[in-house]
Amino acid sequence: MHLGIDIGGTKTDAVLVSPDGVVLHRHVVPSGKGNGEVVTQAVLAAATVCDAAGISPGDAASVGVGIPGSVLDGVVSHAQNLGITRLDLASSLAEAWGVRPVVDNDVNAGAVGAWVAAGGEARSIAFLNLGTGLAAGLILDGKVWRGARGAAGEIGHISVDPHGPLGPDSLPGGLETYASGSGVALQSGGAPAVQVLAAADTDAGSARIREGLFFGVATAVRLLVLTLDVEEVLLGGGLTRMGEPLLDGTRRVIRGWERNSRFLASVDLTARMSVLDPETPVAAIGAAMRGAGRG
Amino acid sequence: MHLGIDIGGTKTDAVLVSPDGVVLHRHVVPSGKGNGEVVTQAVLAAATVCDAAGISPGDAASVGVGIPGSVLDGVVSHAQNLGITRLDLASSLAEAWGVRPVVDNDVNAGAVGAWVAAGGEARSIAFLNLGTGLAAGLILDGKVWRGARGAAGEIGHISVDPHGPLGPDSLPGGLETYASGSGVALQSGGAPAVQVLAAADTDAGSARIREGLFFGVATAVRLLVLTLDVEEVLLGGGLTRMGEPLLDGTRRVIRGWERNSRFLASVDLTARMSVLDPETPVAAIGAAMRGAGRG
Repeated sequence: MHLGIDIGGTKTDAVLVSPDGVVLHRHVVPSGKGNGEVVTQAVLAAATVCDAAGISPGDAASVGVGIPGSVLDGVVSHAQNLGITRLDLASSLAEAWGVRPVVDNDVNAGAVGAWVAAGGEARSIAFLNLGTGLAAGLILDGKVWRGARGAAGEIGHISVDPHGPLGPDSLPGGLETYASGSGVALQSGGAPAVQVLAAADTDAGSARIREGLFFGVATAVRLLVLTLDVEEVLLGGGLTRMGEPLLDGTRRVIRGWERNSRFLASVDLTARMSVLDPETPVAAIGAAMRGAGRG
Repeated sequence: MHLGIDIGGTKTDAVLVSPDGVVLHRHVVPSGKGNGEVVTQAVLAAATVCDAAGISPGDAASVGVGIPGSVLDGVVSHAQNLGITRLDLASSLAEAWGVRPVVDNDVNAGAVGAWVAAGGEARSIAFLNLGTGLAAGLILDGKVWRGARGAAGEIGHISVDPHGPLGPDSLPGGLETYASGSGVALQSGGAPAVQVLAAADTDAGSARIREGLFFGVATAVRLLVLTLDVEEVLLGGGLTRMGEPLLDGTRRVIRGWERNSRFLASVDLTARMSVLDPETPVAAIGAAMRGAGRG
């Protein structure tokens, strides 16, 4: 069994998975804030899920951790939502467990988990995370593509309309402003995404924001497929709890483009896009698989 | 010596290069139209450049060819500018030379040539080709990234302004419409890019198209770096004959973004962008290097 832990902004999700990524045990606790609490809650989640299986974390075949922020050699920087400026997470957890975990960025871990959850046979996928922020994790040739400075997949900062809504940093029409929890909240004056989307059938302002969400997701899928020609784009993150309406709205935008463009019709974006089950803990699974040397 | 041939829409460029990509001999002839003439002119260019070195094409250490269109196993499809629907180019040239060349798409060959010309040490680069069309060739981890269907790098079809100028296929604000020879001609009602750009200091319509060109190049660079985090973006293709004004204009657009965005300022796009010498035949060099097993 491989142990994987996804430390998110609100919850820390620990799983024990089989060598092919099937979840055997899972335990979720609230995430801590600040270096000490973040480590404490990760240790708690791991201990509880291992107890359920009658093992200790040191007995797992491998251990992996996913966490927001920049990660280099097990050291996490700039994980603002967790109150972390700099934390040597791998060493802190190694002290608790007696084994040193593989630590990776949560979106990269999510990409590995999404890839494994989709069968692990595609040569290339993009995992489009529609969470508090928007970013993509890339699996190219069966491995995570990180780029020169570990910043690959930061497509949320790409502007796709110079006259679009302003994001943080005054960026107009950024993908993250259209299609993330923080972007929807920014456009709505602070209302959470779930509330804005629920109101969209009756409120014109909310409907406009929802239409922008579909436009943003469709545009991100087009950008990832045309740039990288990945086999599949797998959508995950909190906004995918919208379910079918998200896919329907995104497909409607893409079909509008395809009616005008023979080229885009030939690319067949809708066939290459799917939504992951929001109940599948892809980042925790991916963290476990990273620990086991996959991706 | 490695033989490389770049079959372009107007000219066929043959080079003999050293194992590290230095051009030793070069000969350029007009390209043919249609299967027979395209092969005839490639054979002529190769024979002439080899004559100059006192060898025959079969004596070269390796032979590679770059050509527009889709290329699979030496067979070229949909090279419209050359009047080719389908051509088994590798077999046709093997008959003439007694050795079978490696055949690749010209933008992929250009990426390999640009990478070698830049020292061949970067782990990742994007070659942004601003020619008749706009597309990128990608070198990731020292190899050409082609994608699932060989279509990676087709970023010309990405829209970056829903209210931008309409391209072919009614695509608004496509990168290719802003920043390619065909796109500039489309916006200007048929005038060639060189004429439009020459008139931009005195004509408002031409100035607007030139500003769109800078916006398009800057946006393509941002898109490639944020998506892939490549070390460098190398600009090539006919439009780069503008020289310094192209770089200056593009840098001006990027610096405008950076004044508003701490994130973009940290990415430092201008430091990661450079223009290749327009006199360096990167696609022919890259074709020769592909033949030699690089990229």
